[in-house]
Amino acid sequence: MAEQIANGNVEKRNKYFEDSGDDFLYHFGFGVSTIDIPKIFGDTKYVCAGGAPTRFKLYAEWFAKEAGIPCSENLSRSDRFVIYKTGPVCWINHGMGTPSLSIMLVETLKLMHHAKAKDVKFIRLGTSGGVGVEPGTVVVTTEAMNAELSDKHVQVVAGKRIERPTQLDAKLREQLCAVANEKGIPVVTGKTMCADDFYEGQMRLDGYFCDYTEADKYAFLNKLHELGVRNIEMESTCFASFTCRAGYASAIVCVTLLNRMNGDQVKIAKDKYIEFEERPFRLVTALIRKDLGI
Amino acid sequence: MAEQIANGNVEKRNKYFEDSGDDFLYHFGFGVSTIDIPKIFGDTKYVCAGGAPTRFKLYAEWFAKEAGIPCSENLSRSDRFVIYKTGPVCWINHGMGTPSLSIMLVETLKLMHHAKAKDVKFIRLGTSGGVGVEPGTVVVTTEAMNAELSDKHVQVVAGKRIERPTQLDAKLREQLCAVANEKGIPVVTGKTMCADDFYEGQMRLDGYFCDYTEADKYAFLNKLHELGVRNIEMESTCFASFTCRAGYASAIVCVTLLNRMNGDQVKIAKDKYIEFEERPFRLVTALIRKDLGI
Repeated sequence: MAEQIANGNVEKRNKYFEDSGDDFLYHFGFGVSTIDIPKIFGDTKYVCAGGAPTRFKLYAEWFAKEAGIPCSENLSRSDRFVIYKTGPVCWINHGMGTPSLSIMLVETLKLMHHAKAKDVKFIRLGTSGGVGVEPGTVVVTTEAMNAELSDKHVQVVAGKRIERPTQLDAKLREQLCAVANEKGIPVVTGKTMCADDFYEGQMRLDGYFCDYTEADKYAFLNKLHELGVRNIEMESTCFASFTCRAGYASAIVCVTLLNRMNGDQVKIAKDKYIEFEERPFRLVTALIRKDLGI
Repeated sequence: MAEQIANGNVEKRNKYFEDSGDDFLYHFGFGVSTIDIPKIFGDTKYVCAGGAPTRFKLYAEWFAKEAGIPCSENLSRSDRFVIYKTGPVCWINHGMGTPSLSIMLVETLKLMHHAKAKDVKFIRLGTSGGVGVEPGTVVVTTEAMNAELSDKHVQVVAGKRIERPTQLDAKLREQLCAVANEKGIPVVTGKTMCADDFYEGQMRLDGYFCDYTEADKYAFLNKLHELGVRNIEMESTCFASFTCRAGYASAIVCVTLLNRMNGDQVKIAKDKYIEFEERPFRLVTALIRKDLGI
């Protein structure tokens, strides 16, 4: 479908999309004919993505301040997602779960295509539940595993299941780990399990529904740990699969807010919570500033 | 798991949750020990849910104005969802896709439980793509069908697939259709297909990826139509399954913004778009005001 070509850009092969001329990115609220996409987004080198809109606004503002560059207003013209731009870095939130993320990624990939942006890297910065790791640990994902415990992203197209690989870029992962070690941020690499819900899909005991026992929960978490899983979130399979399929280098960097081996609710003091939540930001922005010399 | 008892309340059967005493609704940003949940939410009779946060703020404000009652501030203390309350009606957005909705529903079910609210009904008000119906038609869902074309909600728990029914309340559906006819709002009943993404999962030709042909797309849409599907959105299986499983009457009321038999992009004039988007609101609030006498 997509092929990495010499200049690092990614060639699109959807002929319907190519032929259409105009294109409106419905969930961003703008399109080819409403704004000058190459002028605004053409210099993009990193797309940083994560769930919560307010956190991504803050990340963009912090990055702009630290790098001494301006932060755009919210460039999204829809209330589905927020988009901020700080020089060559875009900050876009994706909501929760793979369906919401898939919409954001498809429209971001179309945006980068229209912008003629080259050598773009995609990084997801998130929060997660740890599996046998201390709260505050940053997990840089090796492969994403789905809820049925295979390292695939499952899509259903025309009523049929299609499985796609969930590889992430090894070089980017190594660079991130090196920067984490330099900055004294606790980091591990491992698999990330992508659940389709926060409660039953992650075997929490504190949801509204619970048809399993505490023993079932620990058996499942232990099984995940043996399979090399170090954290659980809700977007990794889609993020890895879509970016890989489009030919872009990508990474997933999530801090763990609790160790699921010890509980289900996030119970850390507010100052510690804030410091933990900042770790993926501190790590990823250190790498970006080093890479781009800003 | 849950059982409708004589007073119309729903009995919870998750013993872990019952035993915990305290409970923090993480994605709403408040809990049993931070606010007086029975005082604020105890009189709830309807929970109206839908994707976009700004639309739901507007709906709450319009409803308050029309009924001559006050509209609360945003009661959510997290940026994941918004919650407004207008007398006995809660307005809560759920983002896009079943994973995001599942979080909102579990925390709302826990909220209604803590609030000791009785005889609550759940209604989803959304937008959708029509299958063989004119843009602007309001579809009141009979059953929700998943992307693999069965009328089930699939959850994966402990690595295993579990399928649950997607029934919706027949009486509530009939009442909604009667009100639509009274008010001259074009309405049909039919199945709603719940897709896991907006582009490939709905066979759109204008996504970034497209491994199928235009002929495949029309073959799929025709198949859906033959199976009784009248619209496609991204939340219906989870909404129907969770509310049914918890013992609450519920309905899904979505307007179609386009007829997918004629295209993939929403291309209607802005005033028409706004009028179409208001139809589920006009229909549902007419029913609620009639039912509650406000």
